[in-house]
Amino acid sequence: MTIKIIPSGSVSSPSGFQACGVKAGLKRSGQPDLALLYCEVPATAAAAFTSNLFAAAPVLWDRKIIAAGQPVRAVLVNSGNANACTGAAGLAAAEAMATQVAAELGLQPQEVLVSSTGRIGVQMPMDIISAGTRLAARALSREGGIAASEAIITTDTRPKHRACQIELGGKTVTLGGMTKGAGMIAPQMRLCTPQATMLAYITTDACIEREALASCLAASLDQSFNRIIVDGDTSTNDTVIALASGLAGNPCIQSGSPDWEKFQTAFRELVAYLAKEMVLDGEGVTHFVELNVSGTGTDQDARRIAEAIARSPLCKTAWFGHDPNWGRILAAAGYSGVEFEPAAVALDYQGLPIVRNGQGTDTPEEKQSEALQNREIRIDLRVGNGSGKFTIWTCDLSYEYVKINADYHT
Amino acid sequence: MTIKIIPSGSVSSPSGFQACGVKAGLKRSGQPDLALLYCEVPATAAAAFTSNLFAAAPVLWDRKIIAAGQPVRAVLVNSGNANACTGAAGLAAAEAMATQVAAELGLQPQEVLVSSTGRIGVQMPMDIISAGTRLAARALSREGGIAASEAIITTDTRPKHRACQIELGGKTVTLGGMTKGAGMIAPQMRLCTPQATMLAYITTDACIEREALASCLAASLDQSFNRIIVDGDTSTNDTVIALASGLAGNPCIQSGSPDWEKFQTAFRELVAYLAKEMVLDGEGVTHFVELNVSGTGTDQDARRIAEAIARSPLCKTAWFGHDPNWGRILAAAGYSGVEFEPAAVALDYQGLPIVRNGQGTDTPEEKQSEALQNREIRIDLRVGNGSGKFTIWTCDLSYEYVKINADYHT
Repeated sequence: MTIKIIPSGSVSSPSGFQACGVKAGLKRSGQPDLALLYCEVPATAAAAFTSNLFAAAPVLWDRKIIAAGQPVRAVLVNSGNANACTGAAGLAAAEAMATQVAAELGLQPQEVLVSSTGRIGVQMPMDIISAGTRLAARALSREGGIAASEAIITTDTRPKHRACQIELGGKTVTLGGMTKGAGMIAPQMRLCTPQATMLAYITTDACIEREALASCLAASLDQSFNRIIVDGDTSTNDTVIALASGLAGNPCIQSGSPDWEKFQTAFRELVAYLAKEMVLDGEGVTHFVELNVSGTGTDQDARRIAEAIARSPLCKTAWFGHDPNWGRILAAAGYSGVEFEPAAVALDYQGLPIVRNGQGTDTPEEKQSEALQNREIRIDLRVGNGSGKFTIWTCDLSYEYVKINADYHT
Repeated sequence: MTIKIIPSGSVSSPSGFQACGVKAGLKRSGQPDLALLYCEVPATAAAAFTSNLFAAAPVLWDRKIIAAGQPVRAVLVNSGNANACTGAAGLAAAEAMATQVAAELGLQPQEVLVSSTGRIGVQMPMDIISAGTRLAARALSREGGIAASEAIITTDTRPKHRACQIELGGKTVTLGGMTKGAGMIAPQMRLCTPQATMLAYITTDACIEREALASCLAASLDQSFNRIIVDGDTSTNDTVIALASGLAGNPCIQSGSPDWEKFQTAFRELVAYLAKEMVLDGEGVTHFVELNVSGTGTDQDARRIAEAIARSPLCKTAWFGHDPNWGRILAAAGYSGVEFEPAAVALDYQGLPIVRNGQGTDTPEEKQSEALQNREIRIDLRVGNGSGKFTIWTCDLSYEYVKINADYHT
């Protein structure tokens, strides 16, 4: 199967989707802060949300709609205000946002999803949202996907978007996506729901049954957003929404069918690309680290070790400094709570042998440090002969991260 | 009961103890790096060690001696090299260190404990250690406690030592202590053993039964070293050793007796002081944070919430920047895995009401930020009406922490 990447592709690439990004005035910087995504026909929808107890008001609104299983027509996304920890007024604001989009576009409020990202604990300024929504409803276009991806970012340094095409049943099926991330990024494996101050939207013109779309999303999360850690904080607003217009005219995809497998492959590739982009553009990130842990009894144990390392400030600062201080990686594995034989441990940086049998090799320190100067670093840790394994995508911890977060006012 | 603090007190303040700190040449900086603590009579000993799987060679040596329950005469402590992940050669080095101290002081190797702190994965340079040990054996004195506390530090900015006196059975009993910390500091509650790259030594001239000393140490840990988090990393070398010479002449203290209660009060106060000093002198620390979580069903649940907050890079950087971003604290509580009612949550900074019923109060943001400018900050989080509670001592995350750890070569 060939997956064709569309240059400058976005959420508006698949047939039936329009999008835009406008300046509503929520961000002090004056940058675009309100995105609208619209489907010209009722779209099949699937979604996953944060497992944080303080789920934000828009998450509570969306969950209800997704649980009802009805088609979706639009998604309004604002940056600059998270509408989290805002109580009954916050819930009313989320509903009002959906209601206003519905009024502007001739829809029912129950057909409109809402996402928010930004500072927690501040009531949504509804006058700004109202004016912005009117503006957005008029700005929708089939070329507006990139503008939308620019309006959803907060501390991200660049918009993150992509689209691709595959052939299914003689028809061309297009998938598009956008995401934002930067801070409060960490898997929360417990509930297998997505993570972090991350928003992601996937569109497609494939015809696909609702359950098939939901299982496709679920299967992709563990290969993408659920395996990334930037800072280890899990947000109140995490949202991944997938919408399918069905306009490609392909035979409708059913769960587990050969077409589902193909579609899932393209979907997963798209989502994995966006997740990796999110880490690369994490707050203050100078290195992307692919951390492969193997040799445990179970995948879950490998994940616990990988998480301990990816969350360790000492490992993350060493990566920032190209310091091959492998003792910190072993120490983090050693306090992860997973039992293994220290004397059996092996560690590689970029394929270079760093530790064998729990002790340092004679690879010169300059060579080790050199390996850590790549922007993307591969680290392999084997702790035994078990078949358990897990990969995490993570990053370093830099001055810039501290700077961004010591004074964060959007 | 009165606890009298001894000005400039240290581990050599109690009768029977001598100490010193010398420059062996392990640290590139040329600073003192080898401490020797000596008891003129066989000392009753109790100790607790790291729960990290990669326990360092000196920890393995000490554990064996403590498990045998025999008296201890001396402790040799080096900084500049952790002797961790060093395999059979490292174990032989730890034993050789004990053997050499024994030879110098006319003791058995089994009467000598060894501690190391510094870089992981580098073999101990035994020629440097040998020359240093000879030097140290000649430098011992009853005034050497402060010099010893200077020789055990790594990235600490100052030595941490203390001594106090109480009256027991008509006799004056003295307790002394020293500690080092700075980085790789985090409780590892799982095994209720002490934490982090922390070394602590408590001396006393009290007569106390071995089990009474051990229970006193165990009871103190949860009120001190087991409740601190600097960066969330747990070291391979954590060690707390308590030695009692018995020379005060008090009626020998038995577990649970009234004298034990008094002694335990003084012991706990001393250890808590050292633990708090360790946080205050943590790597790059500009704020000490006392975080009190209450209202959970169990103390364990309160601890999980407190740990999530104390480990959160977003909370820690906000404290560094005096940013009253309380949403980050609530978000960390919300992903801690503990169930509670978000709408019941209350949060105070320095007694100022910041959150009530899960939402922000009208306390002006300038006032909130002002409260966070104190060097010591008290934060109270109540998540319900349960009787569970836990206090953690933690700190902020600054540029300096990143700087120190992005290039750490002792």
